[in-house]
Amino acid sequence: MSKEKQVPQILSRRVVAQSRLMRVEAVDLKFSNGEQRQFERMKGSGRGAVMIVPCIDDDTLLLIREYAAGLHDYQLGFPKGLIDPGETPEEAAQRELKEEVGYGSHQLEFLMELSLAPQFFSAKMSVFVARDLYPESLPGDEPEPLEKVTWSISDINNLFAQPDFSEARSVAALLMLLRNQGEGR
Amino acid sequence: MSKEKQVPQILSRRVVAQSRLMRVEAVDLKFSNGEQRQFERMKGSGRGAVMIVPCIDDDTLLLIREYAAGLHDYQLGFPKGLIDPGETPEEAAQRELKEEVGYGSHQLEFLMELSLAPQFFSAKMSVFVARDLYPESLPGDEPEPLEKVTWSISDINNLFAQPDFSEARSVAALLMLLRNQGEGR
Repeated sequence: MSKEKQVPQILSRRVVAQSRLMRVEAVDLKFSNGEQRQFERMKGSGRGAVMIVPCIDDDTLLLIREYAAGLHDYQLGFPKGLIDPGETPEEAAQRELKEEVGYGSHQLEFLMELSLAPQFFSAKMSVFVARDLYPESLPGDEPEPLEKVTWSISDINNLFAQPDFSEARSVAALLMLLRNQGEGR
Repeated sequence: MSKEKQVPQILSRRVVAQSRLMRVEAVDLKFSNGEQRQFERMKGSGRGAVMIVPCIDDDTLLLIREYAAGLHDYQLGFPKGLIDPGETPEEAAQRELKEEVGYGSHQLEFLMELSLAPQFFSAKMSVFVARDLYPESLPGDEPEPLEKVTWSISDINNLFAQPDFSEARSVAALLMLLRNQGEGR
């Protein structure tokens, strides 16, 4: 039950598939018990990502409804995006907030770090809660304006019941926010 | 602000990269405002997935520590896996529980449905809480035995503080369980 478990040895690795945006790497691994396996993983940009939970006031959250190609449907979630080269996570969060919902925040607080299917991806996401918002927009690169949706925390069970609010990172961020503030406030 | 937003029209799609396990599809899309873009997404098997939160008793959870190739490190999380052809999600949950931690459950309850980065993936995951466990093992296909880790709910803040407990689906499942049972019980 040691936490200092020895990670498998990487015997070899190579890119086995590549498209405009995606790169798949095959990794030959030797586990500490001698077992050998080939795993595949996505080679990312190495850039981290941010997600922001914007709070309009103590009882009102702001979400976006955005097209998700994997599900070929619109999905509810919080604004998010990659960290640009040279940016801190906080700067990326402010920029994404301005690009996606047209606000900056005077009170941006770190909430948690999340990983996404770490068997395939290496990137981690920093999640922030944005309060004390002020209107400021930056042009984004979305193909269409993002639909903004406000939701009252007093009606939050209804949000969890929405079939288009299921993305694990948005759900985890919201639940952690509710837990931290004891829901009622 | 209509929920019945018209999904973009798929003008064409084709597989642009393929490896042993992964397939990347490029999709040419025309949005309802006329804007055209090419997105890329992962073509999955179409099989859904399950995750199981095993409860040894009212205060004790069971987790596994498993190698994650994307992060090239061991990560804490709950047992999970793909639904095999012909299985119901409940059957897949019982099988994964037996394969990964050596238990079946007399009381398997649906907790929530989660999606994972739906801009890239189509699959949804059904999350279950497993109580009233009994010992029963099935052989799994892991390269090494999975390390089992028990955690007391009374010490749960310490789990959230572990840097290797960050996977969004595991975090979301645990937070939802805590919320449903009011943490204290």
